[in-house]
Amino acid sequence: MTLIPTRIEHDLLGDREVPDAAYYGIHTLRAVENFPISGTTLAAWPDLIRSLAAIKQAAALANRELGLLDATRCEAIVAACEEIRAGALHDQFVVDLIQGGAGTSTNMNANEVIANRALEILGHPRGAYGHLHPNEHVNMGQSTNDVYPTALKIAAATGIRRLIDAMAVLRDGFETKAAEFSDILKMGRTQLQDAVPMTLGQEFGTYARMLAEDEARLGEAELLIREINLGATAIGTGITAHPRYAALVRAQLSAITGIPLVTAEDLVEATQDCGAFVQVSSVLKRVAVKLSKTCNDLRLLSSGPRAGFGEINLPSRQAGSSIMPGKVNPVIPEVVNQVAFEVIGNDVTITFAAEAGQLQLNAFEPVIAYSLFRSLTHLEAACRVLDARCVRGITANRDRLRASVEQSIGIVTALNPYIGYRNATAVALEAQATGRGVYDLVLERRLMDREQLDAVLQPERLTRPQAIEAL
Amino acid sequence: MTLIPTRIEHDLLGDREVPDAAYYGIHTLRAVENFPISGTTLAAWPDLIRSLAAIKQAAALANRELGLLDATRCEAIVAACEEIRAGALHDQFVVDLIQGGAGTSTNMNANEVIANRALEILGHPRGAYGHLHPNEHVNMGQSTNDVYPTALKIAAATGIRRLIDAMAVLRDGFETKAAEFSDILKMGRTQLQDAVPMTLGQEFGTYARMLAEDEARLGEAELLIREINLGATAIGTGITAHPRYAALVRAQLSAITGIPLVTAEDLVEATQDCGAFVQVSSVLKRVAVKLSKTCNDLRLLSSGPRAGFGEINLPSRQAGSSIMPGKVNPVIPEVVNQVAFEVIGNDVTITFAAEAGQLQLNAFEPVIAYSLFRSLTHLEAACRVLDARCVRGITANRDRLRASVEQSIGIVTALNPYIGYRNATAVALEAQATGRGVYDLVLERRLMDREQLDAVLQPERLTRPQAIEAL
Amino acid sequence: MTLIPTRIEHDLLGDREVPDAAYYGIHTLRAVENFPISGTTLAAWPDLIRSLAAIKQAAALANRELGLLDATRCEAIVAACEEIRAGALHDQFVVDLIQGGAGTSTNMNANEVIANRALEILGHPRGAYGHLHPNEHVNMGQSTNDVYPTALKIAAATGIRRLIDAMAVLRDGFETKAAEFSDILKMGRTQLQDAVPMTLGQEFGTYARMLAEDEARLGEAELLIREINLGATAIGTGITAHPRYAALVRAQLSAITGIPLVTAEDLVEATQDCGAFVQVSSVLKRVAVKLSKTCNDLRLLSSGPRAGFGEINLPSRQAGSSIMPGKVNPVIPEVVNQVAFEVIGNDVTITFAAEAGQLQLNAFEPVIAYSLFRSLTHLEAACRVLDARCVRGITANRDRLRASVEQSIGIVTALNPYIGYRNATAVALEAQATGRGVYDLVLERRLMDREQLDAVLQPERLTRPQAIEAL
Amino acid sequence: MTLIPTRIEHDLLGDREVPDAAYYGIHTLRAVENFPISGTTLAAWPDLIRSLAAIKQAAALANRELGLLDATRCEAIVAACEEIRAGALHDQFVVDLIQGGAGTSTNMNANEVIANRALEILGHPRGAYGHLHPNEHVNMGQSTNDVYPTALKIAAATGIRRLIDAMAVLRDGFETKAAEFSDILKMGRTQLQDAVPMTLGQEFGTYARMLAEDEARLGEAELLIREINLGATAIGTGITAHPRYAALVRAQLSAITGIPLVTAEDLVEATQDCGAFVQVSSVLKRVAVKLSKTCNDLRLLSSGPRAGFGEINLPSRQAGSSIMPGKVNPVIPEVVNQVAFEVIGNDVTITFAAEAGQLQLNAFEPVIAYSLFRSLTHLEAACRVLDARCVRGITANRDRLRASVEQSIGIVTALNPYIGYRNATAVALEAQATGRGVYDLVLERRLMDREQLDAVLQPERLTRPQAIEAL
Repeated sequence: MTLIPTRIEHDLLGDREVPDAAYYGIHTLRAVENFPISGTTLAAWPDLIRSLAAIKQAAALANRELGLLDATRCEAIVAACEEIRAGALHDQFVVDLIQGGAGTSTNMNANEVIANRALEILGHPRGAYGHLHPNEHVNMGQSTNDVYPTALKIAAATGIRRLIDAMAVLRDGFETKAAEFSDILKMGRTQLQDAVPMTLGQEFGTYARMLAEDEARLGEAELLIREINLGATAIGTGITAHPRYAALVRAQLSAITGIPLVTAEDLVEATQDCGAFVQVSSVLKRVAVKLSKTCNDLRLLSSGPRAGFGEINLPSRQAGSSIMPGKVNPVIPEVVNQVAFEVIGNDVTITFAAEAGQLQLNAFEPVIAYSLFRSLTHLEAACRVLDARCVRGITANRDRLRASVEQSIGIVTALNPYIGYRNATAVALEAQATGRGVYDLVLERRLMDREQLDAVLQPERLTRPQAIEAL
Repeated sequence: MTLIPTRIEHDLLGDREVPDAAYYGIHTLRAVENFPISGTTLAAWPDLIRSLAAIKQAAALANRELGLLDATRCEAIVAACEEIRAGALHDQFVVDLIQGGAGTSTNMNANEVIANRALEILGHPRGAYGHLHPNEHVNMGQSTNDVYPTALKIAAATGIRRLIDAMAVLRDGFETKAAEFSDILKMGRTQLQDAVPMTLGQEFGTYARMLAEDEARLGEAELLIREINLGATAIGTGITAHPRYAALVRAQLSAITGIPLVTAEDLVEATQDCGAFVQVSSVLKRVAVKLSKTCNDLRLLSSGPRAGFGEINLPSRQAGSSIMPGKVNPVIPEVVNQVAFEVIGNDVTITFAAEAGQLQLNAFEPVIAYSLFRSLTHLEAACRVLDARCVRGITANRDRLRASVEQSIGIVTALNPYIGYRNATAVALEAQATGRGVYDLVLERRLMDREQLDAVLQPERLTRPQAIEAL
Repeated sequence: MTLIPTRIEHDLLGDREVPDAAYYGIHTLRAVENFPISGTTLAAWPDLIRSLAAIKQAAALANRELGLLDATRCEAIVAACEEIRAGALHDQFVVDLIQGGAGTSTNMNANEVIANRALEILGHPRGAYGHLHPNEHVNMGQSTNDVYPTALKIAAATGIRRLIDAMAVLRDGFETKAAEFSDILKMGRTQLQDAVPMTLGQEFGTYARMLAEDEARLGEAELLIREINLGATAIGTGITAHPRYAALVRAQLSAITGIPLVTAEDLVEATQDCGAFVQVSSVLKRVAVKLSKTCNDLRLLSSGPRAGFGEINLPSRQAGSSIMPGKVNPVIPEVVNQVAFEVIGNDVTITFAAEAGQLQLNAFEPVIAYSLFRSLTHLEAACRVLDARCVRGITANRDRLRASVEQSIGIVTALNPYIGYRNATAVALEAQATGRGVYDLVLERRLMDREQLDAVLQPERLTRPQAIEAL
Repeated sequence: MTLIPTRIEHDLLGDREVPDAAYYGIHTLRAVENFPISGTTLAAWPDLIRSLAAIKQAAALANRELGLLDATRCEAIVAACEEIRAGALHDQFVVDLIQGGAGTSTNMNANEVIANRALEILGHPRGAYGHLHPNEHVNMGQSTNDVYPTALKIAAATGIRRLIDAMAVLRDGFETKAAEFSDILKMGRTQLQDAVPMTLGQEFGTYARMLAEDEARLGEAELLIREINLGATAIGTGITAHPRYAALVRAQLSAITGIPLVTAEDLVEATQDCGAFVQVSSVLKRVAVKLSKTCNDLRLLSSGPRAGFGEINLPSRQAGSSIMPGKVNPVIPEVVNQVAFEVIGNDVTITFAAEAGQLQLNAFEPVIAYSLFRSLTHLEAACRVLDARCVRGITANRDRLRASVEQSIGIVTALNPYIGYRNATAVALEAQATGRGVYDLVLERRLMDREQLDAVLQPERLTRPQAIEAL
C-alpha cells in the first residue's frame, strides 16, 4: 500500500521501511513514532542542529588526525556537516524536542542525516551504510552521552550571546530615557506610599542598571557552559575513545564554533551533572524576575489616564478593548511579564529534570533543552519588543510629576537633620490631617526660616546626599 | 561522667543510656541524634501529637475487641493517650519534624512515650518494656506506614477546619465593607487603565466571594484527606493485621476524633500515594494566590497619600519608617503577601516530595508534613490578622472616588449601544487629547441630547446590565 | 512596493494596509507585529478557535432573540462560525498564544475573521465593515473580558475530557497487567529496602488506582471550569449588556457545545478571578506527580538487565545507544517523566500569572492559556504513548520474583504475631549476618515448628490480612 | 490590671505601655502584635542580630567621624552593639521573621534595644529617649531600606561561609571513600540500564567533584552579596546622609565584620533590587539538586539487602521499622533529600518575593530572609549529618560488584573499535537472549582470539580512554 518509494534499514529491533527521500534513517523513524509529544521538533532550534553538525565535523577531523578515519570518509562527513551548518537539511531533523532516551534519538538523527548526505556526496545511495555508517563512522569515538550535552551547551552559549545582545539594546533604551528624564523631579515611593523625591531619570537608570548586572551574570554563566565532556563517551570513562581524542576534538570544535571550549576535568562527573544548565536557567530566572518587576513598574507608572499614577505614557500599540472605545493598554509590558512567568516555570521544570538524574547519566536532558530553548528565545524576543515597541517611545507627564513633589509630605524627611525626627513627625501628621503643605507648617511652627527651607529643599539637593549645613 | 540518672534501653543496634526522666526511649534518642535539621520538633504541631495519640488509643481498643490485647494493657494505653490528647507530655515529642525514615521516628516517639506513661500508670518503672512494649503492644497491628500518614491526615483535617473558620471571619470582614461601600461609585480598572464605573462595594464583594469559593474548595479537599489507610500495615497488604482490624480501628478513630473517616479501598495504593496531600497543598496555594491578589489590590487602592490612587485608607498599625516621619505603610497586607509566597513555595516542596516516592512507600512524607503544617498555620494567622488589623478598619475616600468617575473617559462605553463603537472611539480620543469631558463632547457632536445622556449615565444604571432603551 | 493586493483598514491608531486575501483585519495585524514571541499561534489550539466561534455564534443568536441584531447579519455570523467550528479558516488565527492585552487580540482576531467571512457570505467584500462590523455586530454585548476566559474554559473542558479518556485507556492497560500478574509473588519494598511480600498484580493495580482517582479529581475540576462569565462584559457589571443576555447566551452556548455551562453568580468576581484555571492546573500537576512516580517505578523495576532489579521487562522500542551495542532503554517512561516535569513547571507559571492579576482583570490569562494548553495536550499524548508503547507489552520475570521472596528476610514480619517483635528481630539480624534463611533459623531456635511455619508463610496468606491462629 | 512594671512610650500612633524590663520599645511592641505569623523570631537567626549590631556600631563611628554624633553617645552605642555582637540581649529581638513593613520592625527592634542598653550604660533609665533616641541617634544617617538589606547580606555571607565549610567536610568524606574504593570495578549505569565498567572510586569521586564545583559557585555568589547599599537611606538618593558617610560606614563595617564589603555603584538600583538574594538562593537550589541526586544514588546503590542493587552498605543509624524486624533504612540520605526539596521550594518563594518588588523598594525582603535563613542553615546541617552519619561509614560489597562486571553484556562496548558496532550488537543480542557471556560468544564467532580479548578487557583498560591497538 505504500506508494512513496522506500528503502529498508535495519537495527537492533529488526527491519523497517524508510522513505527513500529521507536523509534520516531507521533510528530517527522509530523515535518519531515513540515521541509524538510536543510537536516541536529539533528543527525549531537551528542552533542545536548547527551545534550537532559542528561536533560531528570536529570528531571526524580528530579521528582523521588519530588515523582512525580515512580521508575519503572524513571529507564527506565534513562536507555534509558544513552544509548543515549553513542551513541545509534542517527539515530532516524530525524528532520531537521532548524525547526519551537521553538524547540518543537526537544524536542518531544527526548521525543518520550526516551519513546519508555524506554517502550522497561520495556517490552512494542513501542507506548504503556499508560504505559509511552512522554509528561506526559519523559517531566514531562518541556517545550520545557526550555529544548531546555538548551540543546543548554550544547552542545555549549561542543563545546566551544573542540574549545578552538583546539586553544591551534594551539597556540602551532605558539609558537613553534616563538621560532624557534626568531633570524631571518626582516622588519616589516605597511600599507604594509616597516617600522622598528623586528624578525620573534615576528611576529609569535603575532599569538599565539591573540589565547591566544581569548581562554580567549571564556572561559568567556562559563561561560555565563552555565546559564540555567530549571524549567521555558512554559514562565518562572514555571507553572506545583514544587518549588524545578529547583534546583534539575540543580544539577542532573551538575552532569551528569560535567558542573557546574547555574539557571538564572529571569526565565521569561532567557526564552526569546538569549543574551548568541549572545555573544558566537560574540566571535566566533572575533576568525574568527583574524584567517582570520593571514591566510592573512601567504599567503602574503609566496607569490612568485619569484615575491612576499617570506619570509616564507608553506608546500606543493597538486598540485596547473590543468594547471600551479609546482604551489603550500597556500590551508590550504585559507580554514581557508573561514571558517572565514562563521562564520562571521553565526553571522549575529544569530543576526537576536535573534532580531526577540517576547514577552515571541524566536521562532528562531533552526537557532541559526544550525549556532552556524557550527561555532563551522568548526572553530575547521580549527584550527586543520591549525596547522597540515600548521603551523608546515613553514620554513623561512633567507637570504632574512636579506637582506631586510640591504637594508631598515626604519632603519633610529632608528636614530631619535640622528639626529632628520627632518634630518632623509632628509636621507630617498635621500635613496629613489638614491637607496643608510641609513648607508652611514648618514656618508656622518656627522650626526653620524661609531662607533655610529654600536652601534645604532646593530640588538638586533632594536627590543626592548632602552635608548638613549650619543654617 | 553522666550525672543525670539514666536507664539502659536496647534496640537492633545495641544498648544506649536514656535519661531516666524521659518518657521517650532509645528509638527517639537515636532519631534526635540523626536529624538535627530544622530545630522544629513534633511538639510544634500539637494537632499531630493529638492525632497520634488518638490513633494509638483507637488501635488499642480495636485490638482489645479482637482479643489480641488484654484489658489491663489496653486500659493503660488508653489512659496515657487521653492524657496526651488533653495536652500532657507534648514536650516529650522531641524528634525534628524534618526526619528520614518515612516517619518511623515519629511513630516510635509516640509508641515510646505512650508505653512509658502506660507503664507508670500500671505501677512499673519507665523502660520496663517486658510489661508493656512500644512495638508489641502500643504499635500492635500497626506500621509507621499506616499510622504516620493517618496522623498527618487527621492533623491536616483539623488545620483545614481552623483555616476555613479564619477565612469565614475574613470573608465576613469583606462582606461588611462591601455592604458599607455599596453606594460608592468609582472607576473600575482593567490592565491598570481606567475602564468603566462600578461600586466600591462590588470591588470588596469580590474579595469576599473569592474566599467563599476557596472555603468550598478546602471543604472538598478535606473530604479527600479523610481517607485513611489504617490496617495497611507495612505496604498495604495488611500483613500481621487481623482481617476485621481495619474496620474496627476506623470506627474507633472516627469516634475519638469526631472526624468521619473512610478506609481507602485499595490499601496498597493508599499507602504509597501522597495525592491527598498534593491536593490539599494545591488548594492552599490557590487560597494564597487569591489572598495575595487581594492584598496587592488593597495596597494599590490605598497608595498615596498624595501621589497614589488614594481611594481607600487602611488603618494605621505602626510607624512606617525609621527615617521618613509620618509615613504609614500597608504592613498587614504586606505580611499576608509574604505568607502567600511561602505557601506557594511550600507547594513546590510538597510536589517534589510527592513525586519522589518510590515503589510501596513515599519516604518523604515528613517534609510534606513540615510544609503543610506551616502553610496551614501561617495562612490561618494571616487571615485573622488581615481581618482584625486591616479590613475591619478600612475607610473610603468618597470624594476622590466620585470625582474619578465624573472625570473619566471610560463612561463612554455605556454609550456604545446608542452611538456605536466608532463614534464612541472618536469621542474618547478627543477627550483624551483635549482633557475635556465625554458628556460635553457627545452633546457638541449632537450624538445624543442632554436628557438621553442623563438617563444613560445615571449611576445606578452604570453598574449593572441595562436594557437599551429607545431614547 | 507592495505587490500583494491589500485593503485599507482603520482603527484607533490610524490606517493600515491589510492583505486583501486575509480574513483577519487591522487589529490582528497589529497584534502579530506586537507579539513575535513564541511562534505558537492560536491555530495551534483548534479547541480554542472552535470555542471562540461557538461563543460568537451563541452571542449572535442571543442578540437576535433580544431584537438587537437583525436576522440577516445574525445568519451570516452563525454561518461563518459554523464553518470555523467545522475546521475552516483556522490558518487565519495568526496571533501568538503569548500576547499582551489580556486576550483582546485573540477576541479581535475572531471578530475580524468572522466578520469578513460573514461579509463574504452576504456578498460584500472583506473589510466592508459598514455592512457588518467586527466590534459592533460580531462582538455585540461582549467584551474580551468575558469572551476570552469563557473560550479558554470551553477549550480546557474539551481538553480535560480528552485527557480523561486517555487516562482511562492507560488505566485499562495497568488493570490488564494487574490481572495478568495477580498470582506472581514478589518482595514489596519501602524506602528501597526489602519489606514484605506482595503480588506484582497488586503493584500494577496501584498504578491503575492512582489514575482512577485522578480521573475523578479531573472530573471535579471540569465541573468548576464550566462556570463562565459571559454577560459580564468589561468588568463584570454587564455594562452595555441586556439584562436577559447572560442567561440567553449561556443557554445557546451550552446547546452549541454540548457542555452544560453555568453563569457565575458574581460576575465582577468571575471576571477577575483565575481560580478555576489554578485548580485545573493543580490537578494536572497531581496527575503529573503520579504519572512520574509510576514511570520512576517502571524504570526501576526493569533496571538491568543483569545488574539491576530485573523484575519486569519493558518492550523494546528503539536501540538505546549510539555506542553501546544491544543496549535498550526505558525511553517511553522517560519521555513521560519529562512531560510531568514540564507540567509541574507550567503550574508554577500559571500560579505566577494568576497571582499577578490586578483589580478588575487578570491581564495574564494568555500565558495561562499557553501553559494549560501544553499541559493538557502533552499529558494526553504521554498517557496514550505510555499505554500503547510500553504498558501493554510489559512482561514479568517470574523466576527472579519468586526467588526474591524465598530468599528474603522480610517474611519474618509475618511471624511477629507468633514469636514477637523482639524474637523476630533477632532472627532477622542473624539472617542478615549469616546469609541464612528465616525459615531455618526459626526452626533452629524452636520458635515455631515446620507445620506452623508452612501455615503462616503460605503465599496467599502473606499478601492480605489474616487472623492470627492458635498454632 | 497590669502587674508587671511598665513605662510609657510614644510614637506616631500614640502612647503605649511597654514592660519596663524590656530593652525593646513601642515600635517593637506594635510589630509583635501586628505579625503573629510564624512564631520564628529574629532571635532564631543570631547572625542577623549580630549583623544589625555591627551596622549600628559602624554607623555611630562614621557619624562620629563626621561630627554628627557626640563622643558620649557614640561610645555608649558602640558598647551596646559590642555586647549584642558578643551574644547579649538576643532574647530582646522578638519580632517575627515574617513581617510586613519591609524590615522596618527589625530595624526598629535593633534601634530600640541598642538605645535602651546605651541609655543604661550612660546611667539613664530605659525609655529616656531624650538622652539618646532610637531614631535620631542609633538610626542616624540610616534608613531601614539600607540597614535591613545590608544586615541580611552580612548574615547571608556568614551563612554561606559556614555552608561552604560544611560542604568541604562532606567533600572530604566522599574523596576519602573515592580513594578507598579506587580499585573496585563495577558496572556503570545509564538510564538505570547496565552500561560499561567503571570503578566505585570514580562513582564516589563524582559526588566530591560536584560539591567542589558548588563550593566555587557559592563563593562567587558570596562575592555578589558583599555589595551593600548603606548610605542609600530611604530610596537610594542618600537623603539626610552626608556625602562622605557611605564610604566611612562601609570601611567601618568591613573592619568590624571582617568581610570586605563594597558599596553599590547605583544606590537607587541597589535599594530596590533583590538580585543578589535571587542569585544566592539559585545557587543553594543548585546545591540542593546535586545533594539530592547524590542521596538518590546512595539509596539506590544500597538498596536491598537481597532484592536490590546491594552494591554498598550505609551504616545503620536506627531501627528502620516499627513492624518489620531487622529492617534498616537509609534515613540519613532521606533527610538530606527532604532538605533539598525544602530549599527548592524556598527558591520559588524567594523568586515570588523578588518579583513582587515595586518601584523604589522591595517590601517582601523579610520572607526572603526567612527562606534564605532556612535554606542556609538546613543545608549546612544536612551536609554535616550526611558526612558524619553516613558517608564516612559506607562500605562496599566487593564480590557482588566484581561479579556484575564479569556477567555483564556491557563490556562488549569495549570491543567496538575491534569488531565494529554491528558485530558487537549481534553478540549483545545473543548474550541477552541466551544468558551467555560476551567473552565466550566473541570467541565462538571467531571475532577475536582469547589473547586479544584478555588484552582489551583487562580491568584497568576499561575505565579510562585507550589507544586502539593492532591486535
